[in-house]
Amino acid sequence: MNKNIIRNTENPLLKPSDVVPSSKEFQVIGIFNCGVVRCLDETILLCRIAETVIHPEDENKVSIPVVVNKDGRDYFETVSLDKTKETAWDFSDSRQIILKGNALKIIYLTSLSHFRIARSKDGVHFELDQKPTIMPNNKEEQWGIEDPRITPLGDRFYITYTAVSPNGAAVSLIETKDFTSFQRHGIIFLPENKDTAIFPGKINGTYYCMNRPVPAVIGSPDIWLSRSVDLIHWGRHTHLCGVSSTGWENGRIGGGAVPILTDKGWLVIYHAADKRNRYCLGVMLLAADAPEVILAKSKEPLVEPLVDYEINGFFGNVVFTCGCLLDGSTVIIYYGAADDSICRIDIELEVIYEHLEISFPE
Amino acid sequence: MNKNIIRNTENPLLKPSDVVPSSKEFQVIGIFNCGVVRCLDETILLCRIAETVIHPEDENKVSIPVVVNKDGRDYFETVSLDKTKETAWDFSDSRQIILKGNALKIIYLTSLSHFRIARSKDGVHFELDQKPTIMPNNKEEQWGIEDPRITPLGDRFYITYTAVSPNGAAVSLIETKDFTSFQRHGIIFLPENKDTAIFPGKINGTYYCMNRPVPAVIGSPDIWLSRSVDLIHWGRHTHLCGVSSTGWENGRIGGGAVPILTDKGWLVIYHAADKRNRYCLGVMLLAADAPEVILAKSKEPLVEPLVDYEINGFFGNVVFTCGCLLDGSTVIIYYGAADDSICRIDIELEVIYEHLEISFPE
Repeated sequence: MNKNIIRNTENPLLKPSDVVPSSKEFQVIGIFNCGVVRCLDETILLCRIAETVIHPEDENKVSIPVVVNKDGRDYFETVSLDKTKETAWDFSDSRQIILKGNALKIIYLTSLSHFRIARSKDGVHFELDQKPTIMPNNKEEQWGIEDPRITPLGDRFYITYTAVSPNGAAVSLIETKDFTSFQRHGIIFLPENKDTAIFPGKINGTYYCMNRPVPAVIGSPDIWLSRSVDLIHWGRHTHLCGVSSTGWENGRIGGGAVPILTDKGWLVIYHAADKRNRYCLGVMLLAADAPEVILAKSKEPLVEPLVDYEINGFFGNVVFTCGCLLDGSTVIIYYGAADDSICRIDIELEVIYEHLEISFPE
Repeated sequence: MNKNIIRNTENPLLKPSDVVPSSKEFQVIGIFNCGVVRCLDETILLCRIAETVIHPEDENKVSIPVVVNKDGRDYFETVSLDKTKETAWDFSDSRQIILKGNALKIIYLTSLSHFRIARSKDGVHFELDQKPTIMPNNKEEQWGIEDPRITPLGDRFYITYTAVSPNGAAVSLIETKDFTSFQRHGIIFLPENKDTAIFPGKINGTYYCMNRPVPAVIGSPDIWLSRSVDLIHWGRHTHLCGVSSTGWENGRIGGGAVPILTDKGWLVIYHAADKRNRYCLGVMLLAADAPEVILAKSKEPLVEPLVDYEINGFFGNVVFTCGCLLDGSTVIIYYGAADDSICRIDIELEVIYEHLEISFPE
């Protein structure tokens, strides 16, 4: 194990048993992929919390958590499905109910995710809200909200996240000044799209973001760059970086942390999975004034799932990040381990540059 | 056959034998799905023309038309593939080369499409350009450009179309004043997306378009509405209309013609296919000041493939439109028949309203 990739000794920093369920019928199965931002003297994590319905006694029944709207307000509710009646559906996967004979057609997810704020003075010990900070809505998020990323711009914070509904997994945008009240801007990327991170600053007068569409027929799950003048409407999409044909990133590749501007360019910690769904973190460096130019990119993973809490969990062999911070010369990566818990790794910038084989003219 | 659905007696109006190939190595296999606009005293069709490479004598070889860039200019070129060497590929489908055992992963298309203008004084007899009007570019359109739709706005025309490359099928935008010089605005919808039609006018200060993403895992090929302030950047996407579970529109549904504003609302001729890929035209009426509201929608197809040139062709049992015109009380639909030729159907508005079961308080 690389001694320069420093896992925090208190990992996991947040785990399911730390979380008060949103409903007495629910159980928390994961607190993981979190957005991160430093605000005044606090580190703020916006955590994805996944819950399932506490299993019913009747083994022929499956209960699904959903969001319903009553009298204009959204509520969590439980839908009970009778396995013996739904003969066209396959209930064998604990994560989802699929159409028999078609693993790519999901009928229901078995868990539902929402977001909660956790705050810390030292970046290690976090106090987590007892209730949901952001609930999925009944309209475009019936199956939950996932993987938030936070970009500070001016006096606002912009949160991009996956909005999941029976119509697909899309990317939506929420704006906040204070993490108390939130303004929804709706879907910014049509399904299927995920892993959207807005760059924290205009580049040549334009906002940029990375995103990861999943085309059905032609192409692969690759990273694209999109451009905007107002953060709500996006266009001028260009392909940035694709999966490689072999190795650790031959399955899918996608944006990870919100990019950080360093003196060498935009530092992007991204995720990649192989065909066996082993998720690692890689890094690329994009030109400061032209993010379409990749100056350097990982040949090998920067971070691999190696320790117990990364290998074993709700979905094992996963390290996945939605945000990191630059503290002096240290990159602090907050990451989801095994779709189960939130952990922290510290890496010196110089170690990342060495990994990228960038020479130092000193 | 419904006598009020009037197929033009000169159908097909344009067919492959009317087209001069773009290269002496190419043959034209289709002139079909065309955008349409009336400009001064002319009807202008922007036609999709599909070409393949004239088959080589060696039966172990397959030749593919592609776009290459040399010295800053884009050219058509032929790539020769050796079937005996590419053992992982399946060459049995005449339309595409796919990965063996995975019909959903396309390696190459066997044909390449570009656009050509056809002009007519009477809307029936067309004069077609001898050379490509719009060529696919080498960057995002290596596998061609397909299914153009033309929206007039102010003194400009905005052309949306499918841009196909190994990175996926996306939607791009081109602007023109005169159909002679063209300004490219790049990709407006990420892969996989097609069937984009911009409404010909702002609605409550906002541009609207219909588009049809194809999500890989959750959801189906449905029609969405998107919003823009500048036509180049799009957001505030909402789901408009999904496939139905049975019948003629249970496979896919997508925008067809650019919407027409009538006194009853936006008239939208759309396409729908069943699971056997039989493509019909349906119609929906959207509220004039709120296109997210469907006032009425076809229960049965408005137009079905019924006559020889619709049933037989490069891809049979297809009627597909990218544009129609309102001439007095007559809707003139230009449509692609069997991915082969361009045809015309005339339908009185009143017939369409009866089809939609809209009553007339007269």
